Amino acid sequence: MNSKKPLILITNDDGYQAKGIASLVEAVKDLGDIVVFAPDSPRSGMSGAITTILPLRSYLYKEDENVRLYVCSGTPVDCVKLAINEFLDRKPDLLLSGINHGSNAGISVLYSGTVGAAIEGCVFGVPSVALSLCEHTANADFNHAASVARKLAVRVLENGLPKGMCLNANVPAGEIEGIKITAQTQGKWVNEYVRAKDGGGHDVFWMTGNFENWEQDNDNSDEWALANGYASVVPVKIDMTAYDLIPELKQWEL
Amino acid sequence: MNSKKPLILITNDDGYQAKGIASLVEAVKDLGDIVVFAPDSPRSGMSGAITTILPLRSYLYKEDENVRLYVCSGTPVDCVKLAINEFLDRKPDLLLSGINHGSNAGISVLYSGTVGAAIEGCVFGVPSVALSLCEHTANADFNHAASVARKLAVRVLENGLPKGMCLNANVPAGEIEGIKITAQTQGKWVNEYVRAKDGGGHDVFWMTGNFENWEQDNDNSDEWALANGYASVVPVKIDMTAYDLIPELKQWEL
Repeated sequence: MNSKKPLILITNDDGYQAKGIASLVEAVKDLGDIVVFAPDSPRSGMSGAITTILPLRSYLYKEDENVRLYVCSGTPVDCVKLAINEFLDRKPDLLLSGINHGSNAGISVLYSGTVGAAIEGCVFGVPSVALSLCEHTANADFNHAASVARKLAVRVLENGLPKGMCLNANVPAGEIEGIKITAQTQGKWVNEYVRAKDGGGHDVFWMTGNFENWEQDNDNSDEWALANGYASVVPVKIDMTAYDLIPELKQWEL
Repeated sequence: MNSKKPLILITNDDGYQAKGIASLVEAVKDLGDIVVFAPDSPRSGMSGAITTILPLRSYLYKEDENVRLYVCSGTPVDCVKLAINEFLDRKPDLLLSGINHGSNAGISVLYSGTVGAAIEGCVFGVPSVALSLCEHTANADFNHAASVARKLAVRVLENGLPKGMCLNANVPAGEIEGIKITAQTQGKWVNEYVRAKDGGGHDVFWMTGNFENWEQDNDNSDEWALANGYASVVPVKIDMTAYDLIPELKQWEL
């Protein structure tokens, strides 16, 4: 892989065996040299988590034509860090994370391992895109999502992305009306747990829930786009400072 | 705990047995009714991670005067979600997360479980503050950090925080010069892995590294404040949308 072709790093949070990542590789493999560096099993909901106490392991699982596949014991962010620090011979020109089985729109940007990996690519200065299909099933149809992924990959390779910013793309299930640039919908998950009993009769809590949308009518929001059949692209920035609040805080007596 | 006193929810990412969380409880316990809901062991670097596949367990570990301590098998964000959804009889008036053993300044806001918990409190509309001491050791001196924590707790109980915003406070080791309101320092971690061999002779990678500061001279940055002996408070917002980039992306042919 010492070609002049763009180097595209691909990861996900569903693990290397997921249909979504295979669809993504298929959709973009003619655009460059591909290195897949993905978790060895599902890591949904891992956000920006990193492995700090245990050691990480990774190995080359297979290599075909211009696609190398590494499997890693860590989180999505570990995959990005380890790939760029220790396994790649040059900095990637593009990072693609996904295609996730399930939506990462709205507030899920905070919990998503798929988005966590794209944010980490951004930390390294690599133009990075998180991609998710709003359909959870293992055998979901990724055709339309893969086509959106390819369009975004081509445009990001052409235009780059500004420092400190990446993209969070979500694609509804089924036919799509087009692609809309949107903003993170305000809202939160509600009814988040089901209480059950384990084998010993002790309470356990299983995560579940549904997203409560606080801006149903905002047609610039990502949830609106998805509900109306559009793929959504939210630009995400890694500087989380609430600059607007600084003047007020400076008035506090501290 | 059906008193009229403020309800203060306390969590951390170092686990319920850490000195930092005990120091925090001690510093604020006269300000309200305290519920500690903390991980059963260290969860450093867990960011906004949630537990989606395994069930969560939690139990009341002890109760003294106005302090109830629950232990939970999940991440810091799980603790916040589970406490508010399933264990508290009213919405907290304040969430405090920490005091972390080690800095969460700069880009660490993306990886920190301490900050992840404060962000989750903010998702619930609870005024939330993450607190960290720039000293890793188990037996660190938390006196000054606890005093900063108390000051912030008092001010946040008085003034609240705007919707969608929380605070990330870091305190240097030793005496402090005062408290500065700052912004997230731009930079990244470098030299992130040490390669070693496991018992079978296979490569493993241990996380390590140091923070590379890209704005050494910016005296409005959190790393500058800490390097100069000040405690730092960064307002953090949970809407990660890069609004400035939207007009440019709308020009892309997608």
